[in-house]
Amino acid sequence: MALVPYVEEEDATGVVREVYDDIKRTRGLARVPAFWRAIAHRPEYLRSEWTKLRTILETGTLDRRTKEMIAVAVSATNNCDYCLRSHTDALRALGTTDAEIVELMSVVDFFNGSNAVSSGLRIEYEPPVLAEPDAQPDPA
Amino acid sequence: MALVPYVEEEDATGVVREVYDDIKRTRGLARVPAFWRAIAHRPEYLRSEWTKLRTILETGTLDRRTKEMIAVAVSATNNCDYCLRSHTDALRALGTTDAEIVELMSVVDFFNGSNAVSSGLRIEYEPPVLAEPDAQPDPA
Amino acid sequence: MALVPYVEEEDATGVVREVYDDIKRTRGLARVPAFWRAIAHRPEYLRSEWTKLRTILETGTLDRRTKEMIAVAVSATNNCDYCLRSHTDALRALGTTDAEIVELMSVVDFFNGSNAVSSGLRIEYEPPVLAEPDAQPDPA
Amino acid sequence: MALVPYVEEEDATGVVREVYDDIKRTRGLARVPAFWRAIAHRPEYLRSEWTKLRTILETGTLDRRTKEMIAVAVSATNNCDYCLRSHTDALRALGTTDAEIVELMSVVDFFNGSNAVSSGLRIEYEPPVLAEPDAQPDPA
Amino acid sequence: MALVPYVEEEDATGVVREVYDDIKRTRGLARVPAFWRAIAHRPEYLRSEWTKLRTILETGTLDRRTKEMIAVAVSATNNCDYCLRSHTDALRALGTTDAEIVELMSVVDFFNGSNAVSSGLRIEYEPPVLAEPDAQPDPA
Amino acid sequence: MALVPYVEEEDATGVVREVYDDIKRTRGLARVPAFWRAIAHRPEYLRSEWTKLRTILETGTLDRRTKEMIAVAVSATNNCDYCLRSHTDALRALGTTDAEIVELMSVVDFFNGSNAVSSGLRIEYEPPVLAEPDAQPDPA
Repeated sequence: MALVPYVEEEDATGVVREVYDDIKRTRGLARVPAFWRAIAHRPEYLRSEWTKLRTILETGTLDRRTKEMIAVAVSATNNCDYCLRSHTDALRALGTTDAEIVELMSVVDFFNGSNAVSSGLRIEYEPPVLAEPDAQPDPA
Repeated sequence: MALVPYVEEEDATGVVREVYDDIKRTRGLARVPAFWRAIAHRPEYLRSEWTKLRTILETGTLDRRTKEMIAVAVSATNNCDYCLRSHTDALRALGTTDAEIVELMSVVDFFNGSNAVSSGLRIEYEPPVLAEPDAQPDPA
Repeated sequence: MALVPYVEEEDATGVVREVYDDIKRTRGLARVPAFWRAIAHRPEYLRSEWTKLRTILETGTLDRRTKEMIAVAVSATNNCDYCLRSHTDALRALGTTDAEIVELMSVVDFFNGSNAVSSGLRIEYEPPVLAEPDAQPDPA
Repeated sequence: MALVPYVEEEDATGVVREVYDDIKRTRGLARVPAFWRAIAHRPEYLRSEWTKLRTILETGTLDRRTKEMIAVAVSATNNCDYCLRSHTDALRALGTTDAEIVELMSVVDFFNGSNAVSSGLRIEYEPPVLAEPDAQPDPA
Repeated sequence: MALVPYVEEEDATGVVREVYDDIKRTRGLARVPAFWRAIAHRPEYLRSEWTKLRTILETGTLDRRTKEMIAVAVSATNNCDYCLRSHTDALRALGTTDAEIVELMSVVDFFNGSNAVSSGLRIEYEPPVLAEPDAQPDPA
Repeated sequence: MALVPYVEEEDATGVVREVYDDIKRTRGLARVPAFWRAIAHRPEYLRSEWTKLRTILETGTLDRRTKEMIAVAVSATNNCDYCLRSHTDALRALGTTDAEIVELMSVVDFFNGSNAVSSGLRIEYEPPVLAEPDAQPDPA
């Protein structure tokens, strides 16, 4: 059980009601996900958080699948159970396979590991020195 | 200065020499990046780390730009200076703009924040309930 | 089940007995919380940890509720189940409402998110430049 | 230098101009802090982030100083240089002393440490058992 | 249930089969641990990860028990359930007692706490100044 | 510059004086390290923190070098500059070589990476099934 009770849909009024309706309409859902019902004890925060998410997912040039992959990469690094389940479900709805989810995790694996070594040894970055200066650099 | 001296290219022999040459050839670089020179005090580890990176970046179906974005997302979450500089340079070499780097960070921002709330309130995930069960779900 | 058995109260002797009694007396508890029973395999560590906690909670000018909120903020950032349950119980015992717990989490949300962006873009801090230099600054 | 150039005030138009003006007016600043100038490459994100911060800081029952302490606690746990400098400046502007900043850090210290042990040993939380069931519980 | 199905041993072919056999032979196991069965959806990644682990555990001068303790220290800091269970089992198989596991956690506790304070206050390191310059330094 | 001024030795009185003297005597130092001078604004916290460190380092069965390696592993995972510099200096004073520091980091690398995958895919631990039940298990 969560550490606060949820604000259930039948009890939602005012700003909460308005945001809940927008969540369901925008996402094609019959039920507001638990994350939003948990934070609805603070209606203005609920509204600004939902507005921020819509802004982030609906504007810009990165496609939705890339954004969901970034969500999963961050959530794996932070070990967030809810977020991992939610955003791998979202990735699957976008057609992502088991092999692609593991491929995503292999990248998350490598960089969590190499981050710890780079920071752990206090290695200083030097811009790449290209063999052929007009070529495209590929630093790592 | 890093916490260990680097194994410089002129001192590289055996496995280290071989890996250094492969790094420069594969990446089109005139100089081995500092990360690899720092870990070369353990030649077998250097080789397995480089092999793993090549495997992760060169196989699979996710494109290189998506993988570099995941690298930056993980490195921002872990606050790794070397890795952030290295992989935003890589993204720029692939044509990524300032606006796209900030767009990437906006996704990293949202999910680092919502991860902490989801975990902090111990919210339990429930699979999405679709308004129209045959439609594509869009959970969050 | 925890990864070590607990040192149960009926088996406590010497330093462990003494610390257990102090925990129960100070906290008004009939039973020593699991955290202390788990670490009691190292009696001197148990004592120094308990002494440190008493020092931190019982001295200084910050009130107990603020300290419990900081405990919850840190535990949400680290995703610690035991600590989140323990310290939201403590906050509730001090009269904190559901809306206040979500308000606390909204602050934790914002700063976990903005930390990742600030670090991720390597933004450098500049001291605030006030419109009216004699006014109270309000940097963010 | 940050990983993206800043959108300077003289180049701000439209939504960015509007948010910059609100930041300066609300905070009494002559200059927009670097965080906002860095993320302004995505104007809609800038607006939703600023709206969220105003909502979080300006509504609710927790006082501003408690919110700034939570900001510092989160930033210390995440090791965010910009955020630590910014929010300890904010705390000082609110009258916080060196001793209180160290007191805050002592709480951050204890719970980062005990989080790792609680999670590390997979200790399971049990609700507190009070010596006098009608008394106020004080779990830890 | 994990977020991907496992590649079970009866379905393993080619590279996966080869790595599974090496895992069982090297470790004296009748069954491949779940970690490897989960990542086997990407056979080349499975191979490079297993090769890296063998390299890290089987070469060098640090003994196996020290390496398992480092594994547990990292896993406690990251709050990884699978890894904590796996590597405390490994430590017990090497003869480690409950008191030693708590001793290990006490070190993990202290440094997670003091890391947050050192970073949180931006304390700058100064090399130790010895009372007797020819003596062995002992900084902290 | 740190976010609080240091309590310098010439200004230390009472509890702070006493702890400073014990630090210098125990460690063979001519100067109190910056960490302790920063937290001395809260004398009782200084004392309990120092007592805890002495307890952790001076009691038990793990040797000092193993404890310093755990300190470095935790500090690399948390990216703590002060702590990394301090404890690699300590390791060097105990005779640790560059190759051993990189060996330590290779273990930190592997487990930071595999932690993220194990947590990211919500892999569930199963106790090892030994090929020869009487043999020593070696799970991973």
